[in-house]
Formats: sequence, structure tokens, C-alpha cells
Amino acid sequence: MASPKKLQGLVAATITPMTSDGKINCSVIEQYVDYLVINQGVKNVFVNGTTGEGLSLSTEERKQLAEAWVTKGKDKLDHVIIHVGALSLPETKELVRERIFPFLCLSIKYDCLLSLPLSDALVAFLQEVASEAPDTPFYYYHIPPLTGVKIRVEELLDGITEQIPTFQGVKFSDTDLLDFAQCVNKYQEKFVLLYGVDEQLLSALVVGASGAVGSTYNYLGKQYNVMLEAFAKQDLELAQQCQVHPLHLLIIFSFVCLGFGVAQIKEVMTFASGIVMGPPRLPLLRASQDFIEKANAKLKSV
Amino acid sequence: MASPKKLQGLVAATITPMTSDGKINCSVIEQYVDYLVINQGVKNVFVNGTTGEGLSLSTEERKQLAEAWVTKGKDKLDHVIIHVGALSLPETKELVRERIFPFLCLSIKYDCLLSLPLSDALVAFLQEVASEAPDTPFYYYHIPPLTGVKIRVEELLDGITEQIPTFQGVKFSDTDLLDFAQCVNKYQEKFVLLYGVDEQLLSALVVGASGAVGSTYNYLGKQYNVMLEAFAKQDLELAQQCQVHPLHLLIIFSFVCLGFGVAQIKEVMTFASGIVMGPPRLPLLRASQDFIEKANAKLKSV
Amino acid sequence: MASPKKLQGLVAATITPMTSDGKINCSVIEQYVDYLVINQGVKNVFVNGTTGEGLSLSTEERKQLAEAWVTKGKDKLDHVIIHVGALSLPETKELVRERIFPFLCLSIKYDCLLSLPLSDALVAFLQEVASEAPDTPFYYYHIPPLTGVKIRVEELLDGITEQIPTFQGVKFSDTDLLDFAQCVNKYQEKFVLLYGVDEQLLSALVVGASGAVGSTYNYLGKQYNVMLEAFAKQDLELAQQCQVHPLHLLIIFSFVCLGFGVAQIKEVMTFASGIVMGPPRLPLLRASQDFIEKANAKLKSV
Amino acid sequence: MASPKKLQGLVAATITPMTSDGKINCSVIEQYVDYLVINQGVKNVFVNGTTGEGLSLSTEERKQLAEAWVTKGKDKLDHVIIHVGALSLPETKELVRERIFPFLCLSIKYDCLLSLPLSDALVAFLQEVASEAPDTPFYYYHIPPLTGVKIRVEELLDGITEQIPTFQGVKFSDTDLLDFAQCVNKYQEKFVLLYGVDEQLLSALVVGASGAVGSTYNYLGKQYNVMLEAFAKQDLELAQQCQVHPLHLLIIFSFVCLGFGVAQIKEVMTFASGIVMGPPRLPLLRASQDFIEKANAKLKSV
Repeated sequence: MASPKKLQGLVAATITPMTSDGKINCSVIEQYVDYLVINQGVKNVFVNGTTGEGLSLSTEERKQLAEAWVTKGKDKLDHVIIHVGALSLPETKELVRERIFPFLCLSIKYDCLLSLPLSDALVAFLQEVASEAPDTPFYYYHIPPLTGVKIRVEELLDGITEQIPTFQGVKFSDTDLLDFAQCVNKYQEKFVLLYGVDEQLLSALVVGASGAVGSTYNYLGKQYNVMLEAFAKQDLELAQQCQVHPLHLLIIFSFVCLGFGVAQIKEVMTFASGIVMGPPRLPLLRASQDFIEKANAKLKSV
Repeated sequence: MASPKKLQGLVAATITPMTSDGKINCSVIEQYVDYLVINQGVKNVFVNGTTGEGLSLSTEERKQLAEAWVTKGKDKLDHVIIHVGALSLPETKELVRERIFPFLCLSIKYDCLLSLPLSDALVAFLQEVASEAPDTPFYYYHIPPLTGVKIRVEELLDGITEQIPTFQGVKFSDTDLLDFAQCVNKYQEKFVLLYGVDEQLLSALVVGASGAVGSTYNYLGKQYNVMLEAFAKQDLELAQQCQVHPLHLLIIFSFVCLGFGVAQIKEVMTFASGIVMGPPRLPLLRASQDFIEKANAKLKSV
Repeated sequence: MASPKKLQGLVAATITPMTSDGKINCSVIEQYVDYLVINQGVKNVFVNGTTGEGLSLSTEERKQLAEAWVTKGKDKLDHVIIHVGALSLPETKELVRERIFPFLCLSIKYDCLLSLPLSDALVAFLQEVASEAPDTPFYYYHIPPLTGVKIRVEELLDGITEQIPTFQGVKFSDTDLLDFAQCVNKYQEKFVLLYGVDEQLLSALVVGASGAVGSTYNYLGKQYNVMLEAFAKQDLELAQQCQVHPLHLLIIFSFVCLGFGVAQIKEVMTFASGIVMGPPRLPLLRASQDFIEKANAKLKSV
Repeated sequence: MASPKKLQGLVAATITPMTSDGKINCSVIEQYVDYLVINQGVKNVFVNGTTGEGLSLSTEERKQLAEAWVTKGKDKLDHVIIHVGALSLPETKELVRERIFPFLCLSIKYDCLLSLPLSDALVAFLQEVASEAPDTPFYYYHIPPLTGVKIRVEELLDGITEQIPTFQGVKFSDTDLLDFAQCVNKYQEKFVLLYGVDEQLLSALVVGASGAVGSTYNYLGKQYNVMLEAFAKQDLELAQQCQVHPLHLLIIFSFVCLGFGVAQIKEVMTFASGIVMGPPRLPLLRASQDFIEKANAKLKSV
């Protein structure tokens, strides 16, 4: 269960590369690892999440992708976190039991949690999964806008290690910075608290975030690293400029081009990295030609 | 693709029986079929839906349950509809490809459908799944409160058979009776339009529903059949009394006993039918002893 | 407090006629009364509600409008209900204290009701207002989609006359027909239960609604009266046809023409009745020329 | 229209003092001003907002309160901003026309803004009100959780001075710090951008907020001023401690004591300042005795 180096800095939520006929394409993952480490300065990844179209992958495909990232990332990446949520309980447990993953992270939907009280059912569920891999560090993935699980994370953390000894931290994807600040205040020594709303990272740093998970770190990692350094040196003016600059970019895509989802991220990443990410899988539709042209023109100008 | 007898009347959303250690228990399904047919007068079932804890079952378990219902229901049940949603696309397709199911029904979550426009992505997804079983009648499961897919069903139905030749109907679980009325008005000859909000069935009958799917038909089927007959004979007063009577029951459970979910349904059905339904699977927690006692007392008095 | 004739049938939610420079125009109300009674067969009105732009009127203007409807409606209309909500408490009370209104109806916003428990605060508020006019029949206006007050009306009605002796009924504008059915079942002799979702009226009739309030009854009252009669004679087929027919119209306006609010209703009513309703008041903008042309073409064809 | 000193630092959202029989009590406002300036170091106020029970006040009462704050604050307070929203348009305009207010701020509910597109209707409404007082600085009050007006403020600000020459800034009460950061980036020289979510102030400072409006500054102003100074000196560690400390307090009240609304704020302020704030007005109910005791015990211990 050792975590020799405490996780900090940026974590890229990885995109799942696919071939043109919609199969997963593990052959480019080595190149992807190098791009992240060398071009973006990002040494941690979060695999099979929303950005990775985890919901559209079979259990078997998720295993293959996880193994590819662990194998190809060896000696290059610091941390490889595998998202094991969004499956049925028997399948989540099957995935976890394999123990090929160095780190696990679990999300859960509210409609799976109809029992009252909510937090008891949530802990019971996390425990059931985590106990399948008693040596693997375990994270909770908090993303209420998607899952509907509206709990205060601070309360969840109180006493959690007694129930889940492998508990190591939270991927916190919400704008409630009050709750996040209190988690940091009480638990920053004990747990890893990763912030997950890219466009508000600076506001999370100021209340004590030590790391961040997000899809934009795939291609804007370098710029965000400048911000992290500026912040560490207390150069708030520079940090502020960094925060607003990439956002501007983001905004233009998301608002002007109508809709910025995984399909669009795949195109942007293909353009930025030169690695072909392929089409998204149904029910997502490929980004429109119009989007691709506007996005490329924009990216060239930046 | 023949559907010799058009589906009408009640469809029970089946509960998944489990053993005390949380495994699925197919051995009581024959008894369950007989209870529905003989005691409740219900000859149609909807398998592996929310009531059946479909989200908590592995692909393999869903196959076993579907087969059990089809086999044990032979010559006794009229229609066995299998819910194939809430899995990843490759797994949904795998399930469909087996072709052991006489009828399919597919739900889909909004967060799988980020592409714009929504209805195109939805049709593309339904088509991709339906085409795996080109001889099997196919239903769309419309339940916006759970899935977030807020489309007008009438629009979806316009021209759908050109894209999905096996399309046969909709399980409509929403309170928008305007949309439902227009579906009936345009398509009652062509499609099967099943209403899915048990407590508003009478209001759906008056705008033309010919059938209904729901969990309460497991143990209140007989009473609802009285209502269907009263309505057919235009005895509105009796129909109204029937509608309010079981509701009262429902209300008392759901509001007095704080929370009426699948765990509670399992207890009520065990009590009503004598067939042991077992505990729910995590993340659901077993109904409290307090609930069980109050519910049993209530049921005895009815 | 006498209500010699129990309110039943249709109640038109009145539009507030304005001059071209945005002042209220009481001079056409006599003509409006005649149009409702003679052309539409509607003998009850609901004044200063949402359709009447109540939120945009001053206390003084609301008084003038209420008086105009009461005066001009004398011996022609059966019931004139005045909406006294959406003002501050002192102003609501001032309006009520005048006692010029034969019937009152009060809505209240959730953000006015932060106290817990909700229902206590709601009753206290209704009581405070109702007690200003101890001889005037009093209605509660239930419209959770607008007010956010998500209570079960059945619970509110239990014991309400002990606290508000003038309580006479509810304008129920929600799709929860279970709650409505239970109100009818328990209280149809005691209270007037008016249904307020025009496009689902038939579904409310079948569970026992005896009257309905809505904006479409201004210009579709005649057609809805045919439906009420058909339903009374248990001719469900004809009732069903009536329900779907005007809806079709509504749908075409609201969905094709993008947005069907008070501004659009004013144009449709002007066209249908020949009485000039004038522009809406800010913050509403006048309906677009495009809408007016399409709507008029549509109405002519019907 | 001169604003000799640009607004910065804390702005207390004032509580409306009432007598025990529910009348507004202007006689303690002088004492209230002194408490804010001397004990809390707060020299700006925001009058008749939600904290001030603006929704429950008549137009006449709002005038009296505004005058009292302006008169008693003379030579002591720097800025007195009067909230003129939550009334009907004719009454809002009447209030504005008096020109007794040095600064105005307007909120508007979404249900007043049914016209499409939203931003056009919003600007038209703001313009209509602002033009009544052509020399008075004008603010827009952005609080989407209460009003439902979900626009991006950055877009609203683009070109606004051409349409509203007196436009001076925004009270931004939302957690979307991306939008706020972009407003700051583009408009910090031109407009006053006040942040309105007390418990996230530090996160707003780091993206450039120059001032803040909130109810907690009434009694925690001194502590927040320490945070502002720490931040100005780039002592982030101290700033962080300040942010978490008062929050803790807040949390304990709001979560432990079940519900932290205006009624509770009145008790806390009475205890903290010694000035009797009186009961809230209906539909709010007075804070429970239980709350008062717990809150007082807590405050004494801090």
C-alpha cells in the first residue's frame, strides 16, 4: 500500500484513443505517456473516467486500458489512478480483485443510493469495493453535478480510515470551496485532496489544494504548471494571468462552438499532440467539421 | 418478429429474488410466475429494470434472469420484456446479440448523450442496439426523472420505424400526459404505449393508455385489474375508488415509513406473496425492522 | 361569506389589457366580460395572476383592475377571484383589507418561506392575510413549478378551516395527480378544487376535478366546454378528441414559434376576440412579428 | 454621479431592526452605523436586500429605511447601496425617481423574464429602471440561485455603458468563479466587482475581487478585515486560517442548528452587537429558543 511519493501537481484525465472503426487503440498509449511527461510536464494520470468514455467501455476494455497505462507508464509516470465506478457492483468488484491497479477511484450515482441515510449507504458501498483490494490505495470521486450525491465531503472523511484502511484521498469535482477548504484544513496531512474543476484551480490552490485532476491538463498542462509555480512563489499576479488565459480559450470553444464534450476534447487533443485519438463511441457523436475547423484555427493562433 | 397478441393490461416490473448471501435466486421464479398469473391476474413482466436492481447485476446475471423468466413463463405469460439498458454499449450489444429475449426495452442516461442535438444521438444509440437483434420487437424506456433525457416522445416516434424497423412501443414513465395523449392520438394503432406511473394510471387511461408497467402490479395487480375493468365499462366512479384505495396504502408506506424503495418493495412482496425475495444488493440497504413491522401490520389490516 | 352557487366549470385567467404606452386599460373590460360569457361560455375569472402580469402591476393598479372586473362582471359573471399574492406582506394585507373583492387567492414564493417546518410558515402566512377579510372566501394558489413550495396539498387541507375559517379551496397548478386525487377524495364536498394545468384537464376530470383555471380558457373556452359536457355524459371518446385538438394548436405555437408566454397570449387573444390587449409590460418584450404572423395564419386555419 | 472614493473592502448586507410588534425600528440605526464602523471596521452597507427582509417591506418602509441609513451614515459610512429590486416595475421606478439614494442595485427574477433572448429582456429592464435616476450609480445584483437568471455576467458587461451610462458594477453572488475571473480581467478598472458568497471570499480575492457584500460582515467584519489585510500582504497562510475559522462557526450554526436564515442572523447579531434586532416578519418565524441558546453558547466560546 506504499505511496512512496505523495501525489501532487497535475493529473491528466486521460482520453481513450480509438481506431476509426471504434475499437480501443492501446498502441498509441506509450506515445501519449511521453507527450504528457515531456511536452506537458504532467506525471500523473486518471484512467477510465468520464473523459476516457468509461461509461461506454466494457469491463474487459477497461482492464486492457488500465494495464496499458500501468505498463507503458512504468518509470515515467508517478501515479496511475484507475476509475472503477459506473459499473454494476459485481463487475466493479471483479475489476478491483485483479489487483493490477496501483490506485483506485470510485464514483457512485445517487440513484444507486436510495437507502437512507445517504452517507451510510455510500460508506457501505465504498467499503465493499475497497475491501476487494486490501493493499491498494483508494480514492472517493466526488462529482455531485454528475452523480447527484450531495454530501459534505468533510463529514465523509471523519473516521473513514477506521472503515476503509486503504482510504487515501478525494477527487473533488465541485464548486463548493467551503467544504473543500475545510477538508484541507482538517486532513491535508492525512489525505490527498485533488481538485477537479479545471477553470477554478487557482481558487482551490488558495484554500490549500495540492493537486488537480482534469481533462484540460492533457494539452494545457504546461501552462497550468506555470501557474502552479507562480502560485508557489506567491506571484499572484502571474498566477492570475495564467488562470484567465487558458480559460479564454476554453470559453471560446465551449460557448462559440456550441458544446464542449468528450468528442470535442478528442479533436483538440489530436491537434495539440499529433496523436490520433479517433472518434468517440456512441452515444457520443463525432465533433462537427465546423467545430474542428474553428478549434484548429483558434489553437494555431494561440 | 411476430407479436401474435398485442400487449395490453398490466405488466409487473419484476423484483429480483436473492438468497440471503446476496446471490440471485432463480429457483423461485416459477412460483413467482404462478403468483402473478393466478393470484394477481397479471400476464406480462418487465425484467431487469430498476425494481429488479438491474443496475446492480452483472451482464451474466442479467442473462440468467432473462432466461429463467422466458423459460418458466412459457405458456403462462403473454409477454416477457427484458430491459437491456444501464450497461456500457458493448455489453448491451452482447446481451442483445444472444437473441434469447422475445422483447427488448432500452433506457439511456442523459450523461451518455452529451452530443447535440439530443434526439439524433438518442436515435443513433437505439438503432445501434436494436440492429443487433433484427427480429426482436424493440421498446424505448422513457423515464426522464431518472435518465434526464427530456425529449417529447411524440417527436421521437415520428418516422422511427424507418430507422428502427423492429420498433414496437414505449414504456412512458413521466407525468407529462400531454405528450402521452398526443402519442396515443397519433400512434395507438401502430405502437404499444405503456404507462409507467402507477399512481396516475387512471389519468393515463382516460387519454388512451392500453397498458401499464409498474412495481405495484406485483402485489396490487388484482385491484388494478378491477380498475381496468371498471374503466372499460365506463364505470368511472368505481375506477376512481380503485385508484384512490391502493394509493392510500402506498402513501402510508412511502411517507409514514420514510422512503419507499426497492428494499421496501422486497419486504412487501415477500409478505404479500409468501415468496422470499431476500435482501437487496448494495448500495441498497435492507429495509429497517421498523418498516417491516409497520408495513406488515398495515398490509394485514387491508 | 356566502357562496350561493358553488364554483364549477371553467375559470379564465384574465389578461390585463394595456394601452400602447403601457398603461392599464380598464375601458375594454366590459367588452372582455361579454366576450367570455357570450362567445366562450365562461362565467368565472381569475384576476391579477401570472397571465394578468400581476407581478408587474402596482398595488394601485391591481385595485383598479379588481374593481373593474367586479363592477363590469356584475350580474354577468358568477365568480371573480382576485389574486392577492406576489406583493410584500404589508401591501398584500392593504389590498385585502379593502374588502372589495368577493374571492381571494394567495400564492407565495418558497424564498419567502425559509422557516422550518415549511407547512407551519405557510399556514401562518395564509392566516395572517385571510384574517384581514374575515367574510371573504379564501383560496390557496398551489403552483410549485413557479413558487417552489413543494408541499402535499392534502396535508395542508387537513384541519385548515380551524385556522382559516374562510378557507374555500385550492387552485391546483401541478401535475401531481395523486395528491389532487386524494384532495378530491377527502374534500370534494367541503372545498372547491380547481385544476390549473390546461393541457391535462381531462386527466384531472377523471379523478374528480369540478373546475379549472387557465389562460387558454380565454379563447378556447367554448371547445373546453364541449369537453366538459362530453365527460359529464361519459362520452370519453369525444372528450379525448377535444383534449387533443386544442392542445395541438398550443403545441404548434409554443414549440414551433419558440416560447409561449404572456406576450404571445396577448396577441392570440387580440386576434381571437377582436379586443386589443396591447403590449405586455417590461420585463416582457412584445411578441415578434414573426410569431404574430404564424399564429394568425394558424388560428385562421383552425 | 461622482463616486469620489472607489468602493472596496467589506459591505455589510444590513439587517432590518424591528420592534417586538413587527414595525420597522429606525431608531437604532445610528447605533448600528457606529457598531459597524467602530467595532467591525466596515464602512459600506447594502440596504433592503434579502438579509434586510426587503421582500416583506412595503415601498413606504423601504423609503424610510433607505433615508435612515443615508442620514445616519453621513460622514461615517463611505457607501450606502440601496436594493430596489423585488417590487413591481411601477413601484421600483417610483422608488428610484425619488433620487434620495446615492447608489442603486437591482435584482430581477427569472419568471419576470420569460421573453427570449434572456439578456435583451434583462438589459431592457435594467435600463428602464436606471433611466429614472440619470445621475445615480447603478449596480446589477447577480444571484442566480435565488433569481434563476443564469447569464454569464461577462457578456452582460460587454457594451453595457452604452445602454446604461450610470452602470457602475455588479454584486456577484454565485460560485462560478470562472465568470467572475473574466469579469475582473476585463473590467476591474471600469467597474466595481463585489463578491457575494461570504464563505468563498478568499477564492474570489485570488482572482481579483476588490470588495465583498454579505450578511456575516455585520458581526464578523473585523475577522474578515484581518483576512483582507493578510491577503494584501500576500500572507496566504494567515488569510487561509481566517477563512476557515469564521466558516467553522457558520457551519456549526447552519448545520447543527438546522437552518440558518434571516431569523437566525437577527439573533446572532443581537447577541454580538447588543443592538436589539427584533423578530423577523412573517412568513419567517422567529428562531427557536433552542437555536438561540446554542448559538449564544457558541458565540461566547469564540
